[in-house]
Amino acid sequence: MTVKLGVIGTGMIGTDHTRRIQEVLTGAEVVALYDYLPENAAKLQAAHAPGAKIHETGEALIAADEVDAVLVCSTGSTHESYVLGAIEAGKPVFCEKPLATTAEGAKRIVDAESAAGRRLVQVGFMRRFDQGYNMLKATMESDLGTPLMIHACHRNAAVPEHYVTPMAIHDTFIHEIDTFRWLLDDDFVSAQVIFPRKTRHAHDKVADPQIVLLETSKGVRIDCEIFVNCRYGYDIQCQVVGEEGVADLPEPMAVATRREARLSQPILTDWKSRFMAAFDAELQDFADRVPSGHVGGPSAWDGYVAAISSDACVTAQETGAIVDIALPDRPALYD
Amino acid sequence: MTVKLGVIGTGMIGTDHTRRIQEVLTGAEVVALYDYLPENAAKLQAAHAPGAKIHETGEALIAADEVDAVLVCSTGSTHESYVLGAIEAGKPVFCEKPLATTAEGAKRIVDAESAAGRRLVQVGFMRRFDQGYNMLKATMESDLGTPLMIHACHRNAAVPEHYVTPMAIHDTFIHEIDTFRWLLDDDFVSAQVIFPRKTRHAHDKVADPQIVLLETSKGVRIDCEIFVNCRYGYDIQCQVVGEEGVADLPEPMAVATRREARLSQPILTDWKSRFMAAFDAELQDFADRVPSGHVGGPSAWDGYVAAISSDACVTAQETGAIVDIALPDRPALYD
Amino acid sequence: MTVKLGVIGTGMIGTDHTRRIQEVLTGAEVVALYDYLPENAAKLQAAHAPGAKIHETGEALIAADEVDAVLVCSTGSTHESYVLGAIEAGKPVFCEKPLATTAEGAKRIVDAESAAGRRLVQVGFMRRFDQGYNMLKATMESDLGTPLMIHACHRNAAVPEHYVTPMAIHDTFIHEIDTFRWLLDDDFVSAQVIFPRKTRHAHDKVADPQIVLLETSKGVRIDCEIFVNCRYGYDIQCQVVGEEGVADLPEPMAVATRREARLSQPILTDWKSRFMAAFDAELQDFADRVPSGHVGGPSAWDGYVAAISSDACVTAQETGAIVDIALPDRPALYD
Amino acid sequence: MTVKLGVIGTGMIGTDHTRRIQEVLTGAEVVALYDYLPENAAKLQAAHAPGAKIHETGEALIAADEVDAVLVCSTGSTHESYVLGAIEAGKPVFCEKPLATTAEGAKRIVDAESAAGRRLVQVGFMRRFDQGYNMLKATMESDLGTPLMIHACHRNAAVPEHYVTPMAIHDTFIHEIDTFRWLLDDDFVSAQVIFPRKTRHAHDKVADPQIVLLETSKGVRIDCEIFVNCRYGYDIQCQVVGEEGVADLPEPMAVATRREARLSQPILTDWKSRFMAAFDAELQDFADRVPSGHVGGPSAWDGYVAAISSDACVTAQETGAIVDIALPDRPALYD
Repeated sequence: MTVKLGVIGTGMIGTDHTRRIQEVLTGAEVVALYDYLPENAAKLQAAHAPGAKIHETGEALIAADEVDAVLVCSTGSTHESYVLGAIEAGKPVFCEKPLATTAEGAKRIVDAESAAGRRLVQVGFMRRFDQGYNMLKATMESDLGTPLMIHACHRNAAVPEHYVTPMAIHDTFIHEIDTFRWLLDDDFVSAQVIFPRKTRHAHDKVADPQIVLLETSKGVRIDCEIFVNCRYGYDIQCQVVGEEGVADLPEPMAVATRREARLSQPILTDWKSRFMAAFDAELQDFADRVPSGHVGGPSAWDGYVAAISSDACVTAQETGAIVDIALPDRPALYD
Repeated sequence: MTVKLGVIGTGMIGTDHTRRIQEVLTGAEVVALYDYLPENAAKLQAAHAPGAKIHETGEALIAADEVDAVLVCSTGSTHESYVLGAIEAGKPVFCEKPLATTAEGAKRIVDAESAAGRRLVQVGFMRRFDQGYNMLKATMESDLGTPLMIHACHRNAAVPEHYVTPMAIHDTFIHEIDTFRWLLDDDFVSAQVIFPRKTRHAHDKVADPQIVLLETSKGVRIDCEIFVNCRYGYDIQCQVVGEEGVADLPEPMAVATRREARLSQPILTDWKSRFMAAFDAELQDFADRVPSGHVGGPSAWDGYVAAISSDACVTAQETGAIVDIALPDRPALYD
Repeated sequence: MTVKLGVIGTGMIGTDHTRRIQEVLTGAEVVALYDYLPENAAKLQAAHAPGAKIHETGEALIAADEVDAVLVCSTGSTHESYVLGAIEAGKPVFCEKPLATTAEGAKRIVDAESAAGRRLVQVGFMRRFDQGYNMLKATMESDLGTPLMIHACHRNAAVPEHYVTPMAIHDTFIHEIDTFRWLLDDDFVSAQVIFPRKTRHAHDKVADPQIVLLETSKGVRIDCEIFVNCRYGYDIQCQVVGEEGVADLPEPMAVATRREARLSQPILTDWKSRFMAAFDAELQDFADRVPSGHVGGPSAWDGYVAAISSDACVTAQETGAIVDIALPDRPALYD
Repeated sequence: MTVKLGVIGTGMIGTDHTRRIQEVLTGAEVVALYDYLPENAAKLQAAHAPGAKIHETGEALIAADEVDAVLVCSTGSTHESYVLGAIEAGKPVFCEKPLATTAEGAKRIVDAESAAGRRLVQVGFMRRFDQGYNMLKATMESDLGTPLMIHACHRNAAVPEHYVTPMAIHDTFIHEIDTFRWLLDDDFVSAQVIFPRKTRHAHDKVADPQIVLLETSKGVRIDCEIFVNCRYGYDIQCQVVGEEGVADLPEPMAVATRREARLSQPILTDWKSRFMAAFDAELQDFADRVPSGHVGGPSAWDGYVAAISSDACVTAQETGAIVDIALPDRPALYD
């Protein structure tokens, strides 16, 4: 059986997901496209999905009989509305981050999904499907005992001019937020942000690097460097310290060479190649679950908590204070 | 468009490939099965391919209209006949190693395919599709200059009682033979086998470890340890030494831990997990090319040369001598 | 020319330094010993320094004509007095940490040395002589550009019952304090201490682990984990993040083995073996400079600043606050 | 007590050893120098040993009352005569490799020392004192079980014009010969040399690289690459494969950096820095044993066996054949 998917938003990520569904995934195909710029949808149709129908609105795509499930890849401010629409239509929906641009918007989705009574929403936190992170999580469970600390960093070679200080949280650190919650099966109770000396390679409007300190409800302490103009590459590091031992996120596989008095291996420079296989796996998982009517992976609740947590981090950026993070009760659907 | 595949032989590898086609690959499905034990075929049908038809003979499967292409996964002695049948039927055929049990048999396939005038046969040397080996090959091309030597080893934790000395060549080293040819784009001119002190963990009928020395037509020298009762794991190493530098095959990705006074990472113990993704990729590549009528990957010629080369290695085992390897002219189809 | 040294305090470290001088160093010998337990001094004399005279007081040892320079290895509360005595006698003095038990005491030494007008005091911060740290410092200078952050950790396998929370600063972190100042050529302006979830392996009176956050006058931010019951070994890690790149303190040299499905190398469990060669080098450096009348290495000023900085860290432990660190003006002697 | 040493030959290595004795070692000093160019001896005297007497002949130096032991650092053809002289004088003698320029010459030394009835001769195979090799040997004993194979390589960045093919054995591989014997506590029974494709970076008169294959009396098989124009650095690798596991010689300690899309660490380019500490340790060991009248470390027998073994390797170079290596009985002195 082949799952029929509709893709809303045919920009970079929508295009990439369509290619992925058509060429990499098994048991799924793209049958419907929508973009607010119809020519973009037509271009994607021509390139990767000649059999897909182009709809005039996202709502029409959601409503279409032949669409079993929906991918929301449009601009962030439209996510909430499309996701709510899919829930209302009773169709599984995969939503790229952010789930909504505000915590309140995310809460409306949680409420709607709770009312619907089943998991229809999967949020695009692809790291939960990354092989290295899954190896790390398995090692935590088998070898480390109770986790006590995480030391992490998120480094990009460079960011464009429009990237400003709060984006270090909303666009970059939000992946770490979800990853830490998933690794630890825990929630945050406070956040603090520290600003080291600024690199000369950063633009005026971004404080870079930053260090975010998080505390969880079980007392685990996390320090995570965010350094988005580190120059040398795209580098994600994560060390978990437990009562019985320490484990590191593996480096991506690479060839070690001996040349010109250096023993070296390449570091990736592009985030897409770093998590390529994780993107494949998260969508395959979504597609595989569509027939059951219940999706898995990161939930609307995870998206909501990520929104609350990242809002607290932005407040911590602005105030320099240790900011409390309080979560509402978790609806039974997400237990 | 979905490619329709028939699988001959539903033992371990035929079962695994069927699962792979049904659950992992995109654009392909298994529509036909045959095994000389019909109950085996039925079991596989029930588990992974409920829509597949079970045929009474391999020949009937090859002839079936709905079969676009064939996988030969039966016992080695039957490969030649099925592959020749598929060539005659003009259908692409993926053949697990060995292509044939004798060099003469492989030559008959080469001749038949040459007469057919197009590449219909892909041999199951999956390492050519392994990510690590492809990284190594790319590094050779970009960074090492002219290759001069390869130091390699192939280690298994243990082998069963029936594994005897020549199987170290025919079953184990044959993968290295194809890999070295592919990495170097070169052929062998001589082989020598050295027997180190035997491990106490080897059975009576297998000399273990062994070291195979190969010389290529361009003068590259290869030493490859084969150690099939090394105890500690399944470990494939390959170091290429070039005029400008040296490169190593990457270790599989693994989590490094610090525990009990050791900094360590796991070594795989199962060859299937080592090359899992390569098996997926080789079959995806095969399926993707079926519609064109021309397959890629390791060819019948590669299978034939591997047979000639491994025969020379067995002679080298038996005689202790440096054995010349002479190849016939390469048919134009394989240029 | 052989430098003649007197050792005050013949406990563990005094004994080890005496052995070192007699058996490892070149150009130095121990000619005088003192311990408040004369039988201890006699035991050391018999074991390693048969030609040394045992003095009745530390003051007498300092005053003895044949003593060119003094090592203070006695209990911490006596350091200040002996160091002041050596300064007064115009003799170079190597003082184990702490220079004094209070910042005021350290200041008295700084003042006395400044008045004497030459560097007579070397403090036993041996890491400045460690090969790995020196490699890291050289790499910082050649490759990293302006330093922005340091991520570090100090882990011990276990600590004894008497080790309480402030000792994590005064006994353990004080080495990191000096090391960071030396690596960065910078001073601290604030300290904060965070307490993660406590390991079940820690005794009642020690909060373990801890994370110390430091800010320097140039804005460099340091986070350093102190985990003294980490179970797995003695492990010192230090990563420096600069504008142009990142560098890690090397792991101690170790043999990698492949056994029992693990690729692993040993982690040291004893701090003495970790810094053995650094202890040798710091004392050799001291002895080599005695004839000139001017010592090098960590100065009384460094000891004083370490005392002020560690006092601030203890206040940060006690209050949970971000504690300012203000230093007096640096006397010209230490420019 | 200070051991008084005389140094014969004040070229590069004699100068370096004199500096080492005067500045690094403990308990030893250079009291006598001789060089066939008196101005060289005078230069060394001025630089590092102002108290040393310059003798008119090596024989006079050996005979001098104040000389407790002798270092032979002169040109290779003079070694035999000076070593025999020292034996006759009953003085311990440290002889740089080669012990003699012929196996017969080495045998005369062995005979003389055997007649003298005590170990007076230490040969300068410094690797036995290298920390990494000692770690490897300890790991072999604790973790690997019976050794079966060694895979090794010896790479130099480049060699000068006068370096010709047999020097790859006599000057380079001879260190490996002694190291393998010491690691394995075993002797060689055959040698074979293979010549891979030649690097374009080698001069006309040197076949480079080469691979030497050795077999020991216990059946251990060794393959060792010698590549003296590898371009990238000075690199010594050694992997021991045993019945229970595999171990690698550690890489020299180095700082890993992340810069310019590479995770890398430096490779040494100078052999002197690679074995600096081993040179220190071998001479300290020699000096420490002089008072006892019995030296340790690599013996005259080891030097003799190295000569026989390397002669066989040169024959193997010349003939392409597998050359038998037969040793005379080992005199009781060396049991």
